[in-house]
Amino acid sequence: MKDKAVITLLTDFGWEDGYIGAIKGVILGINPQCLIVDLAHEISPHDVLGAALVLGHTYPYFPKGTIHVVVVDPGVGGERKPLILATEHYLFVGPDNGVFDLVLRREHGIRAYELAEKRFFLPQVSQTFHGRDVFAPAAAHLSLGVSPEQMGPSVPIEAMVTLDIPNPLIKGEILQGEVIYIDHFGNLITNISQEVLGGFAPDDMVEIEIGGEEVRGLVSSYAEGGKWEIIALWGSGRLLEVSLKENNLHQERGWGKGERVRIRRRR
Amino acid sequence: MKDKAVITLLTDFGWEDGYIGAIKGVILGINPQCLIVDLAHEISPHDVLGAALVLGHTYPYFPKGTIHVVVVDPGVGGERKPLILATEHYLFVGPDNGVFDLVLRREHGIRAYELAEKRFFLPQVSQTFHGRDVFAPAAAHLSLGVSPEQMGPSVPIEAMVTLDIPNPLIKGEILQGEVIYIDHFGNLITNISQEVLGGFAPDDMVEIEIGGEEVRGLVSSYAEGGKWEIIALWGSGRLLEVSLKENNLHQERGWGKGERVRIRRRR
Amino acid sequence: MKDKAVITLLTDFGWEDGYIGAIKGVILGINPQCLIVDLAHEISPHDVLGAALVLGHTYPYFPKGTIHVVVVDPGVGGERKPLILATEHYLFVGPDNGVFDLVLRREHGIRAYELAEKRFFLPQVSQTFHGRDVFAPAAAHLSLGVSPEQMGPSVPIEAMVTLDIPNPLIKGEILQGEVIYIDHFGNLITNISQEVLGGFAPDDMVEIEIGGEEVRGLVSSYAEGGKWEIIALWGSGRLLEVSLKENNLHQERGWGKGERVRIRRRR
Repeated sequence: MKDKAVITLLTDFGWEDGYIGAIKGVILGINPQCLIVDLAHEISPHDVLGAALVLGHTYPYFPKGTIHVVVVDPGVGGERKPLILATEHYLFVGPDNGVFDLVLRREHGIRAYELAEKRFFLPQVSQTFHGRDVFAPAAAHLSLGVSPEQMGPSVPIEAMVTLDIPNPLIKGEILQGEVIYIDHFGNLITNISQEVLGGFAPDDMVEIEIGGEEVRGLVSSYAEGGKWEIIALWGSGRLLEVSLKENNLHQERGWGKGERVRIRRRR
Repeated sequence: MKDKAVITLLTDFGWEDGYIGAIKGVILGINPQCLIVDLAHEISPHDVLGAALVLGHTYPYFPKGTIHVVVVDPGVGGERKPLILATEHYLFVGPDNGVFDLVLRREHGIRAYELAEKRFFLPQVSQTFHGRDVFAPAAAHLSLGVSPEQMGPSVPIEAMVTLDIPNPLIKGEILQGEVIYIDHFGNLITNISQEVLGGFAPDDMVEIEIGGEEVRGLVSSYAEGGKWEIIALWGSGRLLEVSLKENNLHQERGWGKGERVRIRRRR
Repeated sequence: MKDKAVITLLTDFGWEDGYIGAIKGVILGINPQCLIVDLAHEISPHDVLGAALVLGHTYPYFPKGTIHVVVVDPGVGGERKPLILATEHYLFVGPDNGVFDLVLRREHGIRAYELAEKRFFLPQVSQTFHGRDVFAPAAAHLSLGVSPEQMGPSVPIEAMVTLDIPNPLIKGEILQGEVIYIDHFGNLITNISQEVLGGFAPDDMVEIEIGGEEVRGLVSSYAEGGKWEIIALWGSGRLLEVSLKENNLHQERGWGKGERVRIRRRR
């Protein structure tokens, strides 16, 4: 038996309203045989960077051929283009507002198309809910074998919107990064990757500081450190993460996005 | 291959407890081949009107034959009847407490049945969780081809519970509506439909006011207007919606359900 | 057609991040034909007892052969063992930290195995996310027919971590229990089972008190009692539950886990 087409949904819709339901209904109305996977639905409202990071940390785990639909779309109805991206293994459907930033950074040979052919939309397209009226039907048609090329004109990759994710800075003996994402547990995920820190100092030769407090680290798991101790470790997305042992660091200290993390090379 | 039966779930259960899980287990225990779709699970606790609106804005998008299960059921174990509704395209399962109000307003030729035949329930029926013990097994049996008629006696549509959704009023040059639903983004959805406003004045000939503030509108999408500006537009359910540009209007102004919206006809 | 393998997911991940999505991707990458069921994802962060209770109240409703994956795992990367449990009808995958406590209390002839065979893990195993790197791939391989025995050495049941769930105490005419779980509606679920109360007094011969307030009860459903009245009744898991009529008792009174419930035998 041929595997079913997989369509994932990544949104900031929450579970209160009918928005997720309407999208699923539209998809199943066009392709009742596809498998819809709820990826994440509580991205902070309008948080394009959050959506880009969550997508970047999940899409590579899915089987080849998966269609990833992203609807974090504060500019719906405005000038931002509705897009399809085709990479070696996946298709992506969503707005051209930066949600595909990590896909663009990682993948080679991407082709992009503007979703323009109205015959693949719902008959009536609202200006407030392209998730239901444009992205969902397009994804469902892709899952039935329509090619991205059929859906609209090619878009040059260079023309796509990217995000201004801050890079860590190295000044002498100090590497300075910052918090770019806060997860459900209140862990602070920074922009410092294993590659960047690896080029600066070995893991066991660093001192880490955030918000004026010294951090215990780098430890290798959340199980290390004492209760209420602030620890630093490599998170599941291979970015440096700062955590309060068995507690919510974001709530306890109030540190949020943009909070500086300073790493000193020990001698 | 025959399409799988689709069963949607719409509840106020949240994702903390085992309530959603138990319902899914019961359904799959009876029909392991059906497709269960999470429609919405964070309806405000006991908010029957909210459930009715969310159902009304989603059910028409699903393929014919879909079975919609609604468990927002504060009167569980009391006198309210457990029901099945059969419309031209769909079946609905849930309590007779108003959750089907929008279905009743829209559909013609509805047949309704009281869920009474205990052989389609779980062997032990609690007085606190009919979602698991009555509605879930009934929906699963329906998905296997049992007809609604087999599940209990016919109920006259006129006897069903309906909701007292307020209607907008027109007094001279003023159309007055009110907020009836607040969504995840803090947008305020009113009881003013495109039909009602259309009969009053053209979209570009109105001045809109809420909570003593003048609104920019009608705009055509969330992308219009400046930051922190209050805008009014047609939402995805074709009701007039008031929104704070890229922000949460409900939180920022404290306006909730029942807040008045006044529309003046311009000369 | 053979029924699809069913894999349920029970986590404290919430819907904000990519954690749920990554787990689903890994499972579908190994077995694209299985059915993934979202059981609960908003267990309080690190609340092992909450996960054990939710699992205990849901797993028995699923069809035979279901694989239940539990990822509430504050000790990830530390010494706690990753486990597979095999009962007569089900397989369970998760950490040995107490989440399987109710399964252990109820089931007979359980076999347990340490998840040790790295060929059933992802190629790279992080120390922070065994849900994705260990539990998800193991569950997917089980769903393809790999036997638990192949995945690692047998673990004696007596060696498994259990929880210290408090028992109700009987002192003369008083049965004293306590709140062990608070649900989405703010209902307080106690450790007093129907069996324990049944051995103490008939349901209609008891007076119930919590937080210095007298409770109306035992009633038979949430539909009984007047507005704002505190009622006690048998919840869907057959534990005594205290509830504020159509309101959130936990929020209104501030009573939480550990709050005492006293039951006096009437003469």
